Amino acid sequence: MTNDTNPGRGSVRARSSNVTWHETHVSRDEREERRGHRGAILWFTGLSASGKSTLAIEVEKRLFEEGHFSFVLDGDNIRHGLNGDLGFSPEDRTENIRRIGEVAKLFAEAGTLVLTAFISPYRLDRDRIREIMSRPTDFVEIHVSCPVEVCEARDPKGLYRKARAGEIPNFTGIDAPYETPESPELVVETNVYDVAACAEQVVAYLREHGYISNESRLRAVTG
Amino acid sequence: MTNDTNPGRGSVRARSSNVTWHETHVSRDEREERRGHRGAILWFTGLSASGKSTLAIEVEKRLFEEGHFSFVLDGDNIRHGLNGDLGFSPEDRTENIRRIGEVAKLFAEAGTLVLTAFISPYRLDRDRIREIMSRPTDFVEIHVSCPVEVCEARDPKGLYRKARAGEIPNFTGIDAPYETPESPELVVETNVYDVAACAEQVVAYLREHGYISNESRLRAVTG
Repeated sequence: MTNDTNPGRGSVRARSSNVTWHETHVSRDEREERRGHRGAILWFTGLSASGKSTLAIEVEKRLFEEGHFSFVLDGDNIRHGLNGDLGFSPEDRTENIRRIGEVAKLFAEAGTLVLTAFISPYRLDRDRIREIMSRPTDFVEIHVSCPVEVCEARDPKGLYRKARAGEIPNFTGIDAPYETPESPELVVETNVYDVAACAEQVVAYLREHGYISNESRLRAVTG
Repeated sequence: MTNDTNPGRGSVRARSSNVTWHETHVSRDEREERRGHRGAILWFTGLSASGKSTLAIEVEKRLFEEGHFSFVLDGDNIRHGLNGDLGFSPEDRTENIRRIGEVAKLFAEAGTLVLTAFISPYRLDRDRIREIMSRPTDFVEIHVSCPVEVCEARDPKGLYRKARAGEIPNFTGIDAPYETPESPELVVETNVYDVAACAEQVVAYLREHGYISNESRLRAVTG
């Protein structure tokens, strides 16, 4: 790799009262070339218990096994950390999604396939993230579709039950709206297909659209 | 790689009214093993014009050239994005650093050597980030040391001049405090050594403390 702007790799310790201001970041293209796949956001949106996190984690695992760099942002690592100061009012939900979008953008710029798993019920909030991306194809909106009755029957965390009992106000799908994506890149139906099939559908999309190559990188990376 | 929890890789499309809830994230250990280096935050702190960004970008480049995954968070990609809603009051500065710490933590968990370049003048703010890390060694505090007179003489963006003219209130080192780190992992003196030498000092620290290995990963990654 040539690097014409790299100052003094010989590392002579020179006294200097002034810093030489070389500011050439490693470029996104260089990162992606090294990694063998593109950076992008896979934005999973859908009702509570539709299967967003489960699916994102399964896709993360499959991508990792192929030698790609994937990472999931979900309630577990965001709500207790970065967005621990936010509640569930409409304003706070919007700010929640705005920050997640900005963080996901950073991961994409770093060359990662970042998967986000949040209800993200408002169309405008999702569209805003698409708009801030440096490439239009950086934002892959995946509607995790499942009828609310099915989600409510699953209710793995008992949240629908609490919402029906009035213990959780403004619960998406019960007394707060979910705005279905109008033209998402992908729709997966978790009430029709199992996790493995849905994950396969996502990975196939990435392959067909050139986010990942047809050949696995794993051999090259692990020797 | 064995993976006992992975459901149905044969990808039979099965009708299913319920999702199988397998939620095993790719672990941090697996990521780091694959990458051949540890994830961590290299937290550069120091006065405006002390050389934080320049140094972080140089270290990022050297790590990348060795085949490691490094990424810089600095004013350019944070102040216009994630923290675009924050000003420069003491409260906003604290919130600014809190969010950056949380984002950097996510990058470290993802197995990245993430370099942050922010003045971060308050000791308490920096110590809080150290405390939220899942491993004590995840936070490498690097004091980019340079006398304020030298920084002011450099003044590449004319900020000190504006601060002296009263156009920027609460300017660190002029009319707002900088709290020097008490026991940083590393001190680099940009008024004594040039960028190349300071970058070498940082990389040597990472090697000596096992963040990166002695052998370059580059051969393995690029074939």
